[in-house]
Amino acid sequence: MEVFELIQGIARTDANLIRSVDELNKAIDHIVMLIQDSSSLYLGGSYPSSAFLSITACEEVAKAHIGLFTDGTHPEKNGRNMFRNHKIKHQIAAMPTVPMGKRLENALGKDELERIMSMAQNAGFVQIRENALYFQRENDCLVVPSEKVDRDLARSLVLFAIEAFDDALVGSTKYSYEADDITDALFEQIKNT
Amino acid sequence: MEVFELIQGIARTDANLIRSVDELNKAIDHIVMLIQDSSSLYLGGSYPSSAFLSITACEEVAKAHIGLFTDGTHPEKNGRNMFRNHKIKHQIAAMPTVPMGKRLENALGKDELERIMSMAQNAGFVQIRENALYFQRENDCLVVPSEKVDRDLARSLVLFAIEAFDDALVGSTKYSYEADDITDALFEQIKNT
Repeated sequence: MEVFELIQGIARTDANLIRSVDELNKAIDHIVMLIQDSSSLYLGGSYPSSAFLSITACEEVAKAHIGLFTDGTHPEKNGRNMFRNHKIKHQIAAMPTVPMGKRLENALGKDELERIMSMAQNAGFVQIRENALYFQRENDCLVVPSEKVDRDLARSLVLFAIEAFDDALVGSTKYSYEADDITDALFEQIKNT
Repeated sequence: MEVFELIQGIARTDANLIRSVDELNKAIDHIVMLIQDSSSLYLGGSYPSSAFLSITACEEVAKAHIGLFTDGTHPEKNGRNMFRNHKIKHQIAAMPTVPMGKRLENALGKDELERIMSMAQNAGFVQIRENALYFQRENDCLVVPSEKVDRDLARSLVLFAIEAFDDALVGSTKYSYEADDITDALFEQIKNT
């Protein structure tokens, strides 16, 4: 399902997840903290934990973005809240507007950007977040997260998370511009690694 | 259900999760990395992300500990794997032997240690790991992770994770003693904060 179709189908509610500028700023602060954590882990060489937190940042971006006009009631499945569905949050974070700016494409390259967008849209992020935390058996071998998430993937994910934040939330409140200064600086720092 | 009763009920298999010393050492390396990540986030003031990774470390300790003699088949629910159940992993990490040494009690105090053990045993960790990642509405307010996980809780959890690792896995392989040097140094550093 295309993301716009998905969002158009969402039930508008009076009891939205986010109900004021102050609340949106709180959510922005929280997302910036996740991006800072993910960035510092990446820069310290902890790629799996960094990747996990980058994906979490994307999930929270999606919630803050559409939580302004919905409580997350699922358009089709009554009783389910789409804010608790990882795949849907990843799809909403990967707005078609995210790859439109040149910054992310310049940092990742066109092919890698397409690969990351496709993973976000097709449950690839769901798999990565599991692989980034837990060891498991696979083809009769024990596989650990450091074998599943390498430096390049962690770098792509943190840059993607920053761009998704920028695209969805920066400009929504005055405070969001201050937050953007922090994440822009991290983007530049990580781009050059 | 008492943890020993739980473990005694687990189906022994020939196809265990962990099948060699090398595999156990890989799992140990992964757990040490989680503890290092959690420690560095705690020391940098990122308490919610630290708490989440401390609890993840506990989960992986539980898997490595009993994954030596089982594939995780649930004793009662066929088709369910207990290694995918957060609450059960937390219960197994909180072995009665964990609080027996004096190191953790000296660092946390008796009451706080009892509180953490009780949370691990009674699904409190399940709640913390959610609260540590995601903002949500609660009593008509937007609540963010930094309001749910403070410095003291993050400190208790990382020290608990280190002790759980030490208790369950150190001594199991020669390499585990080298890993222990790393986590012991972190314990001392964090204890004094």
